[in-house]
Amino acid sequence: MTPNAIEQLVEHFSSLPGIGPRQATRFVYFLLKQEPKKVTAFRDAIGELQTSISLCKECFLPHEGTCAICTNAGRNHTTVCVVEKESDALRLEKTGIYSGRYFVLGGTVGALEQHSDAKERIAILKKLIEGGNVNELILGLNPTREGMFTSSYVEKVLQDVEKKPRITRLGRGLTTGAELEYVDEDTLRSAFEGRK
Amino acid sequence: MTPNAIEQLVEHFSSLPGIGPRQATRFVYFLLKQEPKKVTAFRDAIGELQTSISLCKECFLPHEGTCAICTNAGRNHTTVCVVEKESDALRLEKTGIYSGRYFVLGGTVGALEQHSDAKERIAILKKLIEGGNVNELILGLNPTREGMFTSSYVEKVLQDVEKKPRITRLGRGLTTGAELEYVDEDTLRSAFEGRK
Amino acid sequence: MTPNAIEQLVEHFSSLPGIGPRQATRFVYFLLKQEPKKVTAFRDAIGELQTSISLCKECFLPHEGTCAICTNAGRNHTTVCVVEKESDALRLEKTGIYSGRYFVLGGTVGALEQHSDAKERIAILKKLIEGGNVNELILGLNPTREGMFTSSYVEKVLQDVEKKPRITRLGRGLTTGAELEYVDEDTLRSAFEGRK
Amino acid sequence: MTPNAIEQLVEHFSSLPGIGPRQATRFVYFLLKQEPKKVTAFRDAIGELQTSISLCKECFLPHEGTCAICTNAGRNHTTVCVVEKESDALRLEKTGIYSGRYFVLGGTVGALEQHSDAKERIAILKKLIEGGNVNELILGLNPTREGMFTSSYVEKVLQDVEKKPRITRLGRGLTTGAELEYVDEDTLRSAFEGRK
Repeated sequence: MTPNAIEQLVEHFSSLPGIGPRQATRFVYFLLKQEPKKVTAFRDAIGELQTSISLCKECFLPHEGTCAICTNAGRNHTTVCVVEKESDALRLEKTGIYSGRYFVLGGTVGALEQHSDAKERIAILKKLIEGGNVNELILGLNPTREGMFTSSYVEKVLQDVEKKPRITRLGRGLTTGAELEYVDEDTLRSAFEGRK
Repeated sequence: MTPNAIEQLVEHFSSLPGIGPRQATRFVYFLLKQEPKKVTAFRDAIGELQTSISLCKECFLPHEGTCAICTNAGRNHTTVCVVEKESDALRLEKTGIYSGRYFVLGGTVGALEQHSDAKERIAILKKLIEGGNVNELILGLNPTREGMFTSSYVEKVLQDVEKKPRITRLGRGLTTGAELEYVDEDTLRSAFEGRK
Repeated sequence: MTPNAIEQLVEHFSSLPGIGPRQATRFVYFLLKQEPKKVTAFRDAIGELQTSISLCKECFLPHEGTCAICTNAGRNHTTVCVVEKESDALRLEKTGIYSGRYFVLGGTVGALEQHSDAKERIAILKKLIEGGNVNELILGLNPTREGMFTSSYVEKVLQDVEKKPRITRLGRGLTTGAELEYVDEDTLRSAFEGRK
Repeated sequence: MTPNAIEQLVEHFSSLPGIGPRQATRFVYFLLKQEPKKVTAFRDAIGELQTSISLCKECFLPHEGTCAICTNAGRNHTTVCVVEKESDALRLEKTGIYSGRYFVLGGTVGALEQHSDAKERIAILKKLIEGGNVNELILGLNPTREGMFTSSYVEKVLQDVEKKPRITRLGRGLTTGAELEYVDEDTLRSAFEGRK
């Protein structure tokens, strides 16, 4: 019963992270009810993404033309914050807390994997460090099991590098709204040690 | 920091039902990592939706060329099932329970509204009924407050129509997996009255 | 660190269905803050449960003195509704839909089990039926897999009984608030067959 | 229909935090099925709580006889950790992170309230501090709005006290498993400032 053009678009929407066929179907029926020019604009925006966006060769953040962060003379170029994904950098930019450069891994390193995109990026990061202009490398990975393993992996890769910068990890403790009763032991320990 | 082409596509994804800016951003970064030809196919599928799909003038289901249901001689054309939205018809088609025609309202009728798309469609439904070839009209609306109000509204609109068909509502009772303890009183009453 | 009397009460509360040690601990600390006479009343109410409540020999509902349902001359004694648990009967009593007697199984019958309390009760039910004063037996079990298996088991046990009453099951269909899109196929089929 | 003894016990269970009448009813029916000696033991445990447990006059933790913490010569008596509730102290004891004394507030201080149990306890805490044997007071309250307001209130009450100890708050930062993308700005700032 379902026309082909609908089924195909449902399939494309279903390929997006977290979207199942049911929600994808709802998206398509929603688009069917929109004004033609809005749907055309949606289509064009996907095309535009492809033609005008590329990843920065230095930090792997997406950009149009040149990277707004790597080419910004006002930022601190000697500090690099390694993050798992673009949206982590985005989050930090929104807060204005951090004014150095980024390095996006595009994922985490798994304990058993031989090869991964993240490992390739870490090899590139190593070269960047060897270039010698980095004073501090902040491992801004999530304190999840995967993120902590990846942080350790980066430290191991960089352990004998020349001109090794100071390597730091983000501080651990209680997040806003946390309740002592439900917080894990490692975090409680950090909270007690880091009291001030 | 975010390039324009990303922001615009984030906005389009955010306009989809149930999608906030955060998930929309994730979709865009996901697409940035896909192979170019996959993204091109996605873009084209949206374009294709617009050029090849239209709504059937009789039942308001979307179709390519002609309506696969309304033009199917093997179906029972004298029974019409009124549904709230396309996906309800889709669900019924998947089960194979029903072999008549559909009539999609595209929404429900609100108690206080003067005018709505659903009311317009109900006016079209009335003309269809007056055409005289409908023997049974199944009010296949959800037994929610809105759906039940809409069913009553349809019945009122059709009350004095000539060649009035038999008008039925879907049976009430216990759904599979229901627990007596948590079921509302109306449903329990239907379940006792409909015991067999 | 935790005093013994606290630990023991935590253990008792933890034995209640759905209560883990954390919530049980919260209960105990809550009681510690209450007025002494309130806590005494709580303690006495548990004692009272044990001394004044027993299960009816006929329907297995709990009662004080005599069973308010089985001894109620105003109720229909020729109709018996089999329910899984006391709270199901309670729910029905609150609605006022049903005016016959009950028979509480105290659980469901498992496909593989040799012996169970529910099976013992079904043997008692069989004798009740053989007594000859039951005209209708309503299988008021939940339409879950376990409930449906139990209904079939009861039917099988009673198939050759003398003076076999009419045996019915509660009607299936859409519960209030159900949405066609998310309802299982069996229920949809019942809803279409039971339309009126 | 429901016997009085059942209704009364349902009411007592319903008074426990987070328990509604439905779950309370389930508890009672569960008890009805238990062996008599188990129910007797439950009843006695509630009685025992009342006769053998009292709150420590120094730290307000519940104890049998004497407070196992305040009378423990092996603990550090010059450090006091203020917590919101008993279960917070319990959680810390389980981890073994902390070896000083506690002071339970029994709640938080509200911005607009004139008088509260927590304020009374803080007045007692002030006297304890004035006694002069406290070197460090750790404000171990949750970093929620209420907890932070209460911490500030305690600091204000103690600002001009003689022999004022060092007053600290638990360290802020990322909890285990946190994701940068979803963490609030204050916590992110703490995490960056506290990197090491």
